[in-house]
Amino acid sequence: MQNNYVRIFDTTLRDGEQSPGATMTSAEKLEVARGLARLGVDVMEAGFPAASPDDLEAVRRIAIEVGNVTDGGRVPVICGLARTTRSDIEKAWEAIQPAAHPRIHTFLATSEIHMQYKLKMPREQVVEKVREMVSLARSLCADVEFSPEDAGRSDPRFLYVVLDEAIRAGATTLNIPDTVGYTMPDEFGGLIGGIIRNTPGIDRCTVSVHCHNDLGMATANTLAGLKAGARQAEVTINGIGERAGNTALEEVVMALQTRRPVFNLETGIDATQITRLSKMVSNYTSIAVQANKAIVGANAFAHEAGIHQDGMLKNQQTYEIMRPESVGASQTKLVLGKHSGRHALQSRLMSLGFALDEKELDVIFERFKNLADKKKVITDPDIEALVADELYQPRELYTLDGLQVACGTMGMPTATVRLCDPEGKCHIQASVGTGPVDAAYKAINAIVQANNTLQEFVVHAVTEGIDALGEVTVRIQSDDLPQSIDPQKEAEQPHTFGGYGADTDIVVASAKAYLSALNKLLVASGQYGPAEKAATQSIV
Amino acid sequence: MQNNYVRIFDTTLRDGEQSPGATMTSAEKLEVARGLARLGVDVMEAGFPAASPDDLEAVRRIAIEVGNVTDGGRVPVICGLARTTRSDIEKAWEAIQPAAHPRIHTFLATSEIHMQYKLKMPREQVVEKVREMVSLARSLCADVEFSPEDAGRSDPRFLYVVLDEAIRAGATTLNIPDTVGYTMPDEFGGLIGGIIRNTPGIDRCTVSVHCHNDLGMATANTLAGLKAGARQAEVTINGIGERAGNTALEEVVMALQTRRPVFNLETGIDATQITRLSKMVSNYTSIAVQANKAIVGANAFAHEAGIHQDGMLKNQQTYEIMRPESVGASQTKLVLGKHSGRHALQSRLMSLGFALDEKELDVIFERFKNLADKKKVITDPDIEALVADELYQPRELYTLDGLQVACGTMGMPTATVRLCDPEGKCHIQASVGTGPVDAAYKAINAIVQANNTLQEFVVHAVTEGIDALGEVTVRIQSDDLPQSIDPQKEAEQPHTFGGYGADTDIVVASAKAYLSALNKLLVASGQYGPAEKAATQSIV
Repeated sequence: MQNNYVRIFDTTLRDGEQSPGATMTSAEKLEVARGLARLGVDVMEAGFPAASPDDLEAVRRIAIEVGNVTDGGRVPVICGLARTTRSDIEKAWEAIQPAAHPRIHTFLATSEIHMQYKLKMPREQVVEKVREMVSLARSLCADVEFSPEDAGRSDPRFLYVVLDEAIRAGATTLNIPDTVGYTMPDEFGGLIGGIIRNTPGIDRCTVSVHCHNDLGMATANTLAGLKAGARQAEVTINGIGERAGNTALEEVVMALQTRRPVFNLETGIDATQITRLSKMVSNYTSIAVQANKAIVGANAFAHEAGIHQDGMLKNQQTYEIMRPESVGASQTKLVLGKHSGRHALQSRLMSLGFALDEKELDVIFERFKNLADKKKVITDPDIEALVADELYQPRELYTLDGLQVACGTMGMPTATVRLCDPEGKCHIQASVGTGPVDAAYKAINAIVQANNTLQEFVVHAVTEGIDALGEVTVRIQSDDLPQSIDPQKEAEQPHTFGGYGADTDIVVASAKAYLSALNKLLVASGQYGPAEKAATQSIV
Repeated sequence: MQNNYVRIFDTTLRDGEQSPGATMTSAEKLEVARGLARLGVDVMEAGFPAASPDDLEAVRRIAIEVGNVTDGGRVPVICGLARTTRSDIEKAWEAIQPAAHPRIHTFLATSEIHMQYKLKMPREQVVEKVREMVSLARSLCADVEFSPEDAGRSDPRFLYVVLDEAIRAGATTLNIPDTVGYTMPDEFGGLIGGIIRNTPGIDRCTVSVHCHNDLGMATANTLAGLKAGARQAEVTINGIGERAGNTALEEVVMALQTRRPVFNLETGIDATQITRLSKMVSNYTSIAVQANKAIVGANAFAHEAGIHQDGMLKNQQTYEIMRPESVGASQTKLVLGKHSGRHALQSRLMSLGFALDEKELDVIFERFKNLADKKKVITDPDIEALVADELYQPRELYTLDGLQVACGTMGMPTATVRLCDPEGKCHIQASVGTGPVDAAYKAINAIVQANNTLQEFVVHAVTEGIDALGEVTVRIQSDDLPQSIDPQKEAEQPHTFGGYGADTDIVVASAKAYLSALNKLLVASGQYGPAEKAATQSIV
């Protein structure tokens, strides 16, 4: 590998998914993993297999289905996260082992505050544990990454010792995280430079950077680390992640590309896939992207895509340093309308990157025809919303069979809901509420009876125009379930579940989104057997 | 002023308001200006007075009402933007002159690409124009700021010449903008350092930095500029602005505060006001803040506010470098409920920073009692949403008198709307649509008849819980109005208008939001006389 190549290590499915409520279903994770492979990431961290048998299975499926496909291009490395325990490392190996290029990523904190208050371990014990667990990982897998957690606040001299030990024990990639987003670019670049100069044997390894955005510095710190000699950047799509999130993939890739003469570094990323993947991750995680987000925000570009006359182009460069086309932000209008056939839809779906089987295509075609009756122009985002609404839902325990709502300024908002339960039996309930959504949710609650608190409720129009599809994302918190495990924190966190629904009627979309979150909650509660088996199962 | 004091120059009301659809009413602008004064900004750029008589009047009102109040603290400088033309500079002066500390800010591009394709002026002519127009500004106002637009892509040696000329002509602040968000921190810091070393007389002036976020570098570049000697930072709340936006005020302020030993710089900002102002700006501009936005995102903090036991606190610092309380992010629950009186509400409103007159208080109290009937716990965000919904609306030409909706999966969504027109006459229309919002908007369109395209439609729950208030923000684009003027670009842009509505019924809130955007559009069309006179007029 040339020395000016930067590996892009995407952790959307691991560190990104640790954001509150960003939980994705296995089917959604698999689809994001496919998207990441098309994008051209070098490594994808597919999850934390020790979290639960479902998490292990989701990583394993990605290792099988995405970690072996050549598809003309590179096969990405599939990475699993493990704490420095035998059990975690063995589970990670079990999950990633089917991949052509598996990697185990293990970590242990090295800052005084973490060692004292979280680990309650002296330095010597930390060093000993790193030696032991990296050796174990290396005995299973030839590709081992080690991270000294909270490196940004660690004593550099202690870092050199720990990293030296990790290299001797067999680590091949050394990742330096600014876990709490505390450092400034000069400091972080200095830290990376110091590590490269002072750690014996580091020239045989790849140095990686992993930054957080608490002070808005994640991208600047990542670039400073690369400038100082790191050759792997750990990033997430849209910069999602706990608190203020991780470094945004799109910002690092486009900064390196737009300012190539400054950095003289390159990546294997096909930037034209960025916008599509950004939208997919935003849908599946229920985390909306701000209009003024760099690269992927709705307002990020000064000019519409598709303007190519030379005079205009020159004028554009006065206020624009990238073209929307370079990140795939052109909104191709689908030429299909209500008279279009199944085959035309199928080719459009293929070009959008969705490989559906016949049964799935039937369902989407049916929805497409219904939408075409209501809406004149159908765009790619409409198609993507339909696919997300139909195919990437959790295992459907309760399904919405009917909804009827009356509301307005003049009376009591009332909703009547008909749901079919997991045994196929239908239930009807009517409820009054403070509004149509409240009424519908209360009617659903009367049937489903799973205690929860609604934490977030957002509706977006998918496209312009008043006849647009509405996308609803909700996030609920279980009032009953035990807390979930976080690989880093000792403190447990409440279980939250996101739901997604799309319909031209936002009350219907709201009911669907709530039901999809409730179904995730019910699956997690274990009352209904194991979670979905994802892609192989017929989903609808 | 000590040499380690950084002036915060907020341009939310000027560069921020240039974002697509972020147009605020005069009443909203005044309220944001009051919030900025409470926050403690040193300078606020209140607008671009030459854009229209309404813009001039809005800036003038801020100069009078916010630029003179001492309120125990500092009186902020009120700044007006002007292109380098006599007419722009005179209008800016007319608008800001009533302030105790007025400032004229004028600019001219200095990069080759801007001079060649936008200005079509050779270097000598640019220098001549700067001399002439800065002199004119200085003859009117003792405080003059000059910006060489697109400085980030300008020849530094030419910049030294232009800035030297501006200083001789009387400029007191020299602002260096990275207009297209192109530079990296090392470059931008180097540019500022070079300017300070090479421009004669610059030690008598304040050097300022103004960065854009196209590559995610705005905050890092701003901090690099301050490190290199700049002592004013131009920023916006939430980082709003054209394309990927401006530098976020909250990120710069909190980086300087959290890493004080690194920078040894301070500001006059009361950071505990940040969260409240962030919410206000997000409401008024219809630009939502991403959950993982640094400092002001919903997920920005790892831990809930209000936890103060010492053991917990230590543990928190393992993953948290700031406390939510430090930026005012604690969600105080209002102890008021349905039995609370008018006086209790009034004191709560006062402590939230709203100084309402008796009439306005009556309206809010009425809404408060209605809400308390539906919702058990009323929080500060609920109160803020009610105030925004009732008091910061545009001049109401058409008002919603009644709405009745039926929708669901079983039939054709239908809405019946009763609107009162500007003469007080009521109209009723029923319409069928693809959903309840589409139906309601079509019924409104049948009465109001103002051609427009819906560009954005977003619904948020104000607080947790299914009985929450829903906030709707919409953005419409006029199909008929002439294009609007942008102070920087030659190309004109279509007029867009934002609207806001809050109600427990999201269909009612959607209708209100649409009507508020339509009312802005109708006022701008000039068919209904001059725009609102803001605060002095009885608004409801």
